Amino acid sequence: MERKEISKSVLKRLPGYLAYLKTLSNETNAYISATALANALGMGEVQVRKDLAMVSDGGRPKIGYLRESLIDDIEQFLGYDNTNDAVLIGAGKLGLALLGYSGFDDYGLNILAAFDAAPAVTVTDSGKPVLTMDKLESFCKSNKVRMGIITVPAVHAQSVCDQLIASGIKAIWNFAPTHLDVPSHILVQNENMATSLAVLSMHLQAQMKEKK
Amino acid sequence: MERKEISKSVLKRLPGYLAYLKTLSNETNAYISATALANALGMGEVQVRKDLAMVSDGGRPKIGYLRESLIDDIEQFLGYDNTNDAVLIGAGKLGLALLGYSGFDDYGLNILAAFDAAPAVTVTDSGKPVLTMDKLESFCKSNKVRMGIITVPAVHAQSVCDQLIASGIKAIWNFAPTHLDVPSHILVQNENMATSLAVLSMHLQAQMKEKK
Repeated sequence: MERKEISKSVLKRLPGYLAYLKTLSNETNAYISATALANALGMGEVQVRKDLAMVSDGGRPKIGYLRESLIDDIEQFLGYDNTNDAVLIGAGKLGLALLGYSGFDDYGLNILAAFDAAPAVTVTDSGKPVLTMDKLESFCKSNKVRMGIITVPAVHAQSVCDQLIASGIKAIWNFAPTHLDVPSHILVQNENMATSLAVLSMHLQAQMKEKK
Repeated sequence: MERKEISKSVLKRLPGYLAYLKTLSNETNAYISATALANALGMGEVQVRKDLAMVSDGGRPKIGYLRESLIDDIEQFLGYDNTNDAVLIGAGKLGLALLGYSGFDDYGLNILAAFDAAPAVTVTDSGKPVLTMDKLESFCKSNKVRMGIITVPAVHAQSVCDQLIASGIKAIWNFAPTHLDVPSHILVQNENMATSLAVLSMHLQAQMKEKK
């Protein structure tokens, strides 16, 4: 189907639908309706109906969606079926943890290699090469890599970001707790775990104070 | 100093300041001004000045902040100095990656134990116990744990969330790609890596299309 403009809030709900649909078996649930899905997930029926209509035109009145087709449509929509090759910069603690996390395969992410200013190892436990930064540009260009993951300390993040862009990267997943300046055609998605922890920690501190 | 109300955007910038301040040496930078910090990080001077004034009252005109005191003030503000004990639910691929990530120590997070409906191991590589779900409530209550990390599949997340709340948890770090319903005194911080990847992937797909 033709791709429609979609909001970030819809995008956030789609992985939830997908996860639930995959838990159902084909014997008991060959078809599933927006109503059944809404009830199972405790969500509004209208919202679920609209969301599904954005990503699939396979819905039939009174019957619903063929479950397997709906799974395909959502996965295609989210881009899980076309794998994105990526490079990761910063083979420190967080970088190595992400490199070792095999769950990204399910989302179509394939980290080809890691780069580091001073690699402590030449290959990770999971078998990914760890290369020096001077190899970055040629590696990205010869492998046509367009996604970069930044896991360096905050002070080095902008310089790494600039090097990624010079290497042809168009989408950046930023785990460094700092803002990155980029041209308008580059997308930065920030994943700030330090901020998340600070927000949680401050909530707990505020609660302690209330009790006193 | 007395704690002021602080916006999430300020919170997001503080870890960046902290990371940079820690890279400086005491010989060359015993004192640092908001102006110097702004220049080093390529940020607006007024913003940095305001941010620092929120967390520290140690700034002196024309001299700036004593670097070590400023580090202490930011860390105290972010709650990095009072350690938060946490439990993690869902010892799958993501859960085990987080359990193995020692970098959380720097942010005052201490994961005491993991819980799983059907643990594949009884202890992780990093030496954390993996317990069955029926132990959750007594463990949280006897250890006074108030933070829970959810890394179960989306369909199980709400039920796990309810169990955490029943166990006395007040702050939830949710890695499951789904919305959680909670009472108003409970804080949920969502870390939706699947959504991030979908956003990045869709940006790359849209760029491909433009080129054609």
